[in-house]
Amino acid sequence: MITIVSGTNRPESKSREVADFYKKLLLQNDTESQILDLMDLPADFTFSALYQNSGKNEQFNSLRAIMENSTKYVFIVPEYNNSYPGVLKAFIDGLSYPNALIHKKCALVGISDGIQGNVLGLSHLTDVLNYLGTHVLAQKVRIPLMKKNFMEGEIQDAFIHQLISEQARLLLQF
Amino acid sequence: MITIVSGTNRPESKSREVADFYKKLLLQNDTESQILDLMDLPADFTFSALYQNSGKNEQFNSLRAIMENSTKYVFIVPEYNNSYPGVLKAFIDGLSYPNALIHKKCALVGISDGIQGNVLGLSHLTDVLNYLGTHVLAQKVRIPLMKKNFMEGEIQDAFIHQLISEQARLLLQF
Amino acid sequence: MITIVSGTNRPESKSREVADFYKKLLLQNDTESQILDLMDLPADFTFSALYQNSGKNEQFNSLRAIMENSTKYVFIVPEYNNSYPGVLKAFIDGLSYPNALIHKKCALVGISDGIQGNVLGLSHLTDVLNYLGTHVLAQKVRIPLMKKNFMEGEIQDAFIHQLISEQARLLLQF
Amino acid sequence: MITIVSGTNRPESKSREVADFYKKLLLQNDTESQILDLMDLPADFTFSALYQNSGKNEQFNSLRAIMENSTKYVFIVPEYNNSYPGVLKAFIDGLSYPNALIHKKCALVGISDGIQGNVLGLSHLTDVLNYLGTHVLAQKVRIPLMKKNFMEGEIQDAFIHQLISEQARLLLQF
Repeated sequence: MITIVSGTNRPESKSREVADFYKKLLLQNDTESQILDLMDLPADFTFSALYQNSGKNEQFNSLRAIMENSTKYVFIVPEYNNSYPGVLKAFIDGLSYPNALIHKKCALVGISDGIQGNVLGLSHLTDVLNYLGTHVLAQKVRIPLMKKNFMEGEIQDAFIHQLISEQARLLLQF
Repeated sequence: MITIVSGTNRPESKSREVADFYKKLLLQNDTESQILDLMDLPADFTFSALYQNSGKNEQFNSLRAIMENSTKYVFIVPEYNNSYPGVLKAFIDGLSYPNALIHKKCALVGISDGIQGNVLGLSHLTDVLNYLGTHVLAQKVRIPLMKKNFMEGEIQDAFIHQLISEQARLLLQF
Repeated sequence: MITIVSGTNRPESKSREVADFYKKLLLQNDTESQILDLMDLPADFTFSALYQNSGKNEQFNSLRAIMENSTKYVFIVPEYNNSYPGVLKAFIDGLSYPNALIHKKCALVGISDGIQGNVLGLSHLTDVLNYLGTHVLAQKVRIPLMKKNFMEGEIQDAFIHQLISEQARLLLQF
Repeated sequence: MITIVSGTNRPESKSREVADFYKKLLLQNDTESQILDLMDLPADFTFSALYQNSGKNEQFNSLRAIMENSTKYVFIVPEYNNSYPGVLKAFIDGLSYPNALIHKKCALVGISDGIQGNVLGLSHLTDVLNYLGTHVLAQKVRIPLMKKNFMEGEIQDAFIHQLISEQARLLLQF
């Protein structure tokens, strides 16, 4: 099963819109997927689901189970202060170790209002995911200038559309 | 004012112990400092203090004010999944932008039970802090093998002790 | 064909010894491989084989052809100033673009006399290789404290030996 | 003394043009500087000036002396394969250690034909320079889309011009 992680808990996020777009993209490649939206995290998860409380928060456990039961992922990663959102990393910090992500495969999509498309955040996340044993598809897609390049649920720039379509196909073969 | 950030919300963390040690170290250099412990974050801060709720959580605001009113920082950064803790990044994501950290200066200390001393986490954090306008002292200190190298509130390894003492002096001149 | 890149032009390098070890390791998995030693680079390649001289240096072209004709790689990467050797990057800068490395797969081994095992260099190299379209196996192996951990052509530390043996098997399936 | 390093040995490079621009910028701030152009490296320096030959190449030694005798640097760093040029790193690998760069200060400028402005290369170089003891000014400047943003020796984009002018002033106070 492929899980698309919408990488922020911001309400009505652009990340979620891109996740919805990616789900349609995979469907066009005859592949079902599910979206895990960090909006659905329990509000106090950084205290109630980590460390000595690991495994004790049922709402968090249900998200954790989705990650454990998937074999491939797409991470939609908005640029927050030149890296991934802290909330995305805190979610990963709460997964069971070492079995949640080991020997899994994933694709990364960086998004930003600015011109970088979260290039550094994708690099940082690659370090984290590789450490956890998840292979990262070389073809990372960046969507900079989101306000212009992504409107009404669709990628507006033809070249970026080509890149993300190719990424989706490569992930299925990866 | 120098603020020492204990970079995790884990209860009774080693990071806090190292922060306490660093406070003593600065005092030996005739310099007062204060500790900001991420344990004191409101449990639901990733929802109640970010995005549309920025500025609305008084408990979070008081921590934010400490950061804004400081000019130098020491970040004690434990290694979580080959990077900084998500909670530390989420805390930074909640600071006021762009004025909280710009033109400030800091020193970084990485700690780990394993042998890396969070070398990648310090690199990732440097990317974030530089983006926010904070100069990072070149001399980063890593304390690997914490169980052996840090006991009873003191650094046990003579070379690491020398490095961290030098770092503290350099930070005061930075 | 699998090519093992010995990632420095230092004479009688430890990297070459580890490359020889890895070749034996692959053979134990019934797989032939070849070693490309950066010692064999033409001495003036950074001037005679790059930019306007790309393709004009026959000795360099023969090394370039080896890279182009391989589908999997192992990079043995010594730690030089907290990153990969400049010579390794200059060699990659001289490869034909975009076809030399795209859709290829590789495994990374970091080595160092110090305790890091070139963790940052492997991160930097992952950024470069991913950009060029090469998938990097998540399981990166670090051999720190080379003087102790690698003697007489063999890895001395049992745990590192287990990790590198597992890496070799995973690369063959990757 | 401030040395501006033109970070590639490519003939007639854009990096050199940006270095010339930066020299004028510093002069407008009443500060003399000198340019070290990697074009002036001996063609075989990666063999004749490194490892067992360290210190034996007079032409390389003269460049090395310039670095040792400077206290501040500006690095102009073109984007080669998503990082700094291998030649720049090989040059750094040939400097005397640990005294060449320790306790020095520098500013970084990334340039690229594409839209990134070498953001990853500046991150990698920061890791290297911090390791060598050089403080990196937080305010890194990126000049993407060089063909449009830099013409006839001048920065065309008003915002980038403002950023680089501010960087130069901050470096002088750093």
